[in-house]
Amino acid sequence: MLDGLFRPRAVAVIGASANPLSIGHIVVRNLLDHEFKGPIFPINPKGGSICSIKAYRSISEVPDQVDLVNISIKAEYIPAIIDECGRHGVKFAIVHSAGFKEVGEEGVRREREMVEIAHRHGMRIYGPNSQGIQNSDPEVSVYANFTFVPMKPGNISIIAQGGGMGELLKLHLSKVGLGHRLYCSYGNECDLTMPEILEYYGQDEGTRVIMMQTESFKDPRAFLEVAARITPHKPILAIKAGRTPEGSVAVSSHTGSLVDQAAMAEALYRKAGVVQFTDSDEMIKAAIALACQNVPRGRRLGLITNTGGPGIQAVDEAVSRDLVLAEWSEAGRQRLEQSLYAEASCGNPVDVVATAGPEHYFAAVDTLLKERDTDMVMVFLVTAPFVDLDGIAERIAEATADAEKPVVVVVETTDRWARLIERLRGAGLPVYEFAEDGVRALADMVRYGELQRRPAAEPPALDVDRQAADAILEPWVGKDTFLPQTEAYRLLAAYGIPAPALAVVSGPDDLDEAVREVGFPCVLKVDSADVVHKSDEGGVVLGLETREQLEAALATMRDRFRSAGTRFVVQRQAPSGCELILGAKEAPGLGALVMFGLGGVMVEVLRDVSVAVAPLATPEADALMRAIAAFPVLTGVRGRPGVDLDALRDLLLRFSRLAADHPAIREMDLNPVLAYPRGEAPLAVDVRIRVR
Amino acid sequence: MLDGLFRPRAVAVIGASANPLSIGHIVVRNLLDHEFKGPIFPINPKGGSICSIKAYRSISEVPDQVDLVNISIKAEYIPAIIDECGRHGVKFAIVHSAGFKEVGEEGVRREREMVEIAHRHGMRIYGPNSQGIQNSDPEVSVYANFTFVPMKPGNISIIAQGGGMGELLKLHLSKVGLGHRLYCSYGNECDLTMPEILEYYGQDEGTRVIMMQTESFKDPRAFLEVAARITPHKPILAIKAGRTPEGSVAVSSHTGSLVDQAAMAEALYRKAGVVQFTDSDEMIKAAIALACQNVPRGRRLGLITNTGGPGIQAVDEAVSRDLVLAEWSEAGRQRLEQSLYAEASCGNPVDVVATAGPEHYFAAVDTLLKERDTDMVMVFLVTAPFVDLDGIAERIAEATADAEKPVVVVVETTDRWARLIERLRGAGLPVYEFAEDGVRALADMVRYGELQRRPAAEPPALDVDRQAADAILEPWVGKDTFLPQTEAYRLLAAYGIPAPALAVVSGPDDLDEAVREVGFPCVLKVDSADVVHKSDEGGVVLGLETREQLEAALATMRDRFRSAGTRFVVQRQAPSGCELILGAKEAPGLGALVMFGLGGVMVEVLRDVSVAVAPLATPEADALMRAIAAFPVLTGVRGRPGVDLDALRDLLLRFSRLAADHPAIREMDLNPVLAYPRGEAPLAVDVRIRVR
Repeated sequence: MLDGLFRPRAVAVIGASANPLSIGHIVVRNLLDHEFKGPIFPINPKGGSICSIKAYRSISEVPDQVDLVNISIKAEYIPAIIDECGRHGVKFAIVHSAGFKEVGEEGVRREREMVEIAHRHGMRIYGPNSQGIQNSDPEVSVYANFTFVPMKPGNISIIAQGGGMGELLKLHLSKVGLGHRLYCSYGNECDLTMPEILEYYGQDEGTRVIMMQTESFKDPRAFLEVAARITPHKPILAIKAGRTPEGSVAVSSHTGSLVDQAAMAEALYRKAGVVQFTDSDEMIKAAIALACQNVPRGRRLGLITNTGGPGIQAVDEAVSRDLVLAEWSEAGRQRLEQSLYAEASCGNPVDVVATAGPEHYFAAVDTLLKERDTDMVMVFLVTAPFVDLDGIAERIAEATADAEKPVVVVVETTDRWARLIERLRGAGLPVYEFAEDGVRALADMVRYGELQRRPAAEPPALDVDRQAADAILEPWVGKDTFLPQTEAYRLLAAYGIPAPALAVVSGPDDLDEAVREVGFPCVLKVDSADVVHKSDEGGVVLGLETREQLEAALATMRDRFRSAGTRFVVQRQAPSGCELILGAKEAPGLGALVMFGLGGVMVEVLRDVSVAVAPLATPEADALMRAIAAFPVLTGVRGRPGVDLDALRDLLLRFSRLAADHPAIREMDLNPVLAYPRGEAPLAVDVRIRVR
Repeated sequence: MLDGLFRPRAVAVIGASANPLSIGHIVVRNLLDHEFKGPIFPINPKGGSICSIKAYRSISEVPDQVDLVNISIKAEYIPAIIDECGRHGVKFAIVHSAGFKEVGEEGVRREREMVEIAHRHGMRIYGPNSQGIQNSDPEVSVYANFTFVPMKPGNISIIAQGGGMGELLKLHLSKVGLGHRLYCSYGNECDLTMPEILEYYGQDEGTRVIMMQTESFKDPRAFLEVAARITPHKPILAIKAGRTPEGSVAVSSHTGSLVDQAAMAEALYRKAGVVQFTDSDEMIKAAIALACQNVPRGRRLGLITNTGGPGIQAVDEAVSRDLVLAEWSEAGRQRLEQSLYAEASCGNPVDVVATAGPEHYFAAVDTLLKERDTDMVMVFLVTAPFVDLDGIAERIAEATADAEKPVVVVVETTDRWARLIERLRGAGLPVYEFAEDGVRALADMVRYGELQRRPAAEPPALDVDRQAADAILEPWVGKDTFLPQTEAYRLLAAYGIPAPALAVVSGPDDLDEAVREVGFPCVLKVDSADVVHKSDEGGVVLGLETREQLEAALATMRDRFRSAGTRFVVQRQAPSGCELILGAKEAPGLGALVMFGLGGVMVEVLRDVSVAVAPLATPEADALMRAIAAFPVLTGVRGRPGVDLDALRDLLLRFSRLAADHPAIREMDLNPVLAYPRGEAPLAVDVRIRVR
């Protein structure tokens, strides 16, 4: 339990000083200004007082039990101080100071020493190189943090790796008059981990929405397990810093992590039901909506506006975010027509016109909320000088008071009518500045709803022969090499992954049997760990139709690849089909990721791929397929048949299980897989498997 | 000249009343409150005074020359009033009232009558169903408009079809403390047109940036010509309402226009050098940057931050918008290392760290601005409580004072340090709230720069036989039909568009000659205006290798298409190549649009197409090809050869010229065109041409 951190009964500040620009001073000031509900103990070797509070020379002199200390002294002195804190019964230390892992070898050693000492006392270290925490719960009101955004109670909690991003997230909440609940920016994560804190947020009853920013995952498996437990009852909105290769380099130089974790983050978020964002502003605005409105049950949006242009902006944004414009029932349309001005437009958007008053807004909102086929409502309102704005706010608030469906409002006005916005916010309605903002917030709520409602499932039982696969892999493990084609195909066969018929030949004497087994047309391929890019090196001949062609091709190829013992495979040529690519890659700390995409342009130029954590459950395999932009190709477009999705799903399940069962596999590509119309199994036409 | 509208010497307000909620009253109040530099003449049949200004019973009684009248009386009375205004020498009438075109037949008649009367007096009508205009030039200060956003001088001018969008654009400028220059929301456009107003904006010396919103183009050709004259010296930023099919329906119901103009808008904007936006917030923020900063000469961005996370957000956003992270010279890097704290990071982003002071910022900004390979700079700054913020603002302002390169600043702070933002804005720097905002503004400036610098060119001279084409089309014009294949290919040939060899056959007797002309392998197709979807109806047989196969195919097909006189074509089968689609479509009021895309999935599923106005100039043909996401396929990916881009460009030029030269062509598709590696001309394998 992290109550000692987030609900401390007393806080000591080690490094508190009279210098108002020092971190220690600012922490004392922040605790004091936000009326921390326990005693604050500034610690300073010189004693005296800081912000009118008696300062103690050391933690040992503090007369009370202290749950939490904030430390901002030089890194080299910290291990000894931790020991003293431990002896005094301190439970948590927030280390603001830098000078640890991020400065190299010596820092790493110091960090390790500090943690060992802490653990000896049953104490935990938060940070180092961190901002600290906040809890706005009025019973605690702890601002153990040196930053500057004023804290006020709210129900959105923030957990950020980087202090700058954490600060930015709460800053915008503060700017629109909202507070936050828990806050932490956790820095180096040397001891207390992000998943532990996230779990605490999940259990905190005052937290309705969690916003997080992550630069790199120290323990992705733990994050996955914690997040998956939270998202069914509480949304987690997340930004992964470094989604582009260049951004990823920037992350590395900022945190010292070595691998690009963007694909892993996408897979983790999808599996855990976390809503991913790339834009911080959009994430904050979605959090605001989720903090005060219910999650929509579907994608059908009802729009109300009092002016045309922004209504069209809303429609364009909604459609491009895959929302659907709701249609009204006959009764609903009649009520709109009877309740609104004659010049109003009763389609979707409902244009109540600029002169609409309180009753018109009430009728429009109330009608749409009661429409069975409407899942959510957005109201756009430009303040006209000739209408009763207070009345409009009042009646919108009344119409939405008991609504189970979410409502967001966009108000276009000046400071002169700011009270309209205050009144609407006071009624628990999110209010935005641009029509696009409101639509995006709703679309993001829809994304959460769909993740929340997605079927939970375990990877299914499959008739795979794990032992046979172990036996195939065993001789190669530890060699850091590519499996020969024959072994690779045997491995696929052990997991029931279909491939064209295959035979191995060393020379012309083997051809008779190969032809019997494989037939024509066939393909001849060199099979050597030294030849990785077979096609580029002339190691593949396609479309062999006769025994003579095959023999000639073999002769040429033996000439080209002369090394002793080189073998070749003869493989039945698969009929042309829909080209797909499946990939698997080890993901340290998590297991393996699988990647899916359409072959050719879609993967190579447009990077239209989706990723997931192996092994896949059945709904996850479906989601993996649906996640690519080119998915309609698989279901069939413009009269062309689609592919057998059941068979493809089965292949994905088996492939992902193979990757997950055998950590010896570092990388595995089926490129291409050819998929066929219903009734025909897809075929893994080429395979490349690298073992560690 | 529209000086009478935007720089009136006197304004009369017809329909001015004592009721403070009436439009007439609000217009008088707005003119008065904003200190209009000429006299205001309220007109009210009852006389008296309005807002302490003497009201006249009619315009005829006004003692002065009046340039502009605002009219908000009932529509039915307006034509007579216009006549009276005309006789009194009024030059422009802003008609606020609704009740014209948008209400049907009677309104259309009234609108026509009103315009006819006005023209008799040499007077022009603005609107109807419109908000009005503003000009913040202190010499004029005219707020002839009934809306509520306070006006203050600025250098961004706004022209919006919809009042709600226009208001929203100036509202945000006002919220961030900026003003605007000219403003108009032009409504029904019954007489005075958007291009006329736009031209005036282009010539207005106080206007540095133009923002516009359009719902439908009444005269696209005029817009194109005017906008193309403005964009070389002044950016036009534009939103086209209704970019999605649903949004387009919303536009229709709002404005009464009938066709989806989204594709046309895209083509117009590209040709005219207008920067297109979909998000209103983003457009406004780009306008703010362009209003005070120079246009970047390239895509190379230098980032400065004092905290990691938002720096990474900036990098991710920059890369996803095709900006490039600049690299520093050795000298630049050394200066950074010498000037900044030891723990600063001197890559890109430069992380000056949270404790950086004025001199660090000055050194970082000054260094980056002087780097030869840096085109623009963004500074992200979270206010740390322990640094000299005034000094930082001062030194950033100094470093950027004479910069030719654009600089934008993102400040993360509370109201407590709002003066920092004021100081930076005062120095002519745009300041944003989120890192992503700053990057997007720069990326949008880059888009403008690239449009501005794009080579100007006329469509080239081509060896086409226009007369021959006219002769081919002549017998079909007026029949609203598809051309027979033979005629369609003759038309392509007249414009030098390459296609496989072709022969026409009516029966088996023609086969000998056809085989001589075409050879094998060949394709047999039915050629009938009644059979539009030939493949679907069994009217195409591919891969005929011998005379026997051809004969058999012809017999079957004659059996299938029995109508007397049905002809067939034998066409050489083109070798497989890169499948492309070219389309042309008439665009009323503009001529023709051409469309380009990769065949198959890319067009059908991903809608990855680009459009342009016909005929194309050479750089436009290049831009059309580059505009599709799959463009790298054409240059070659992963060792696969690209296509002959010169030959493809030539084909695009000819195809677009054919569409432009012959308005009788309503639609024309080459689907597919097969393109080949360098040295081989692309072939139009199938063609469909519809004439009016």
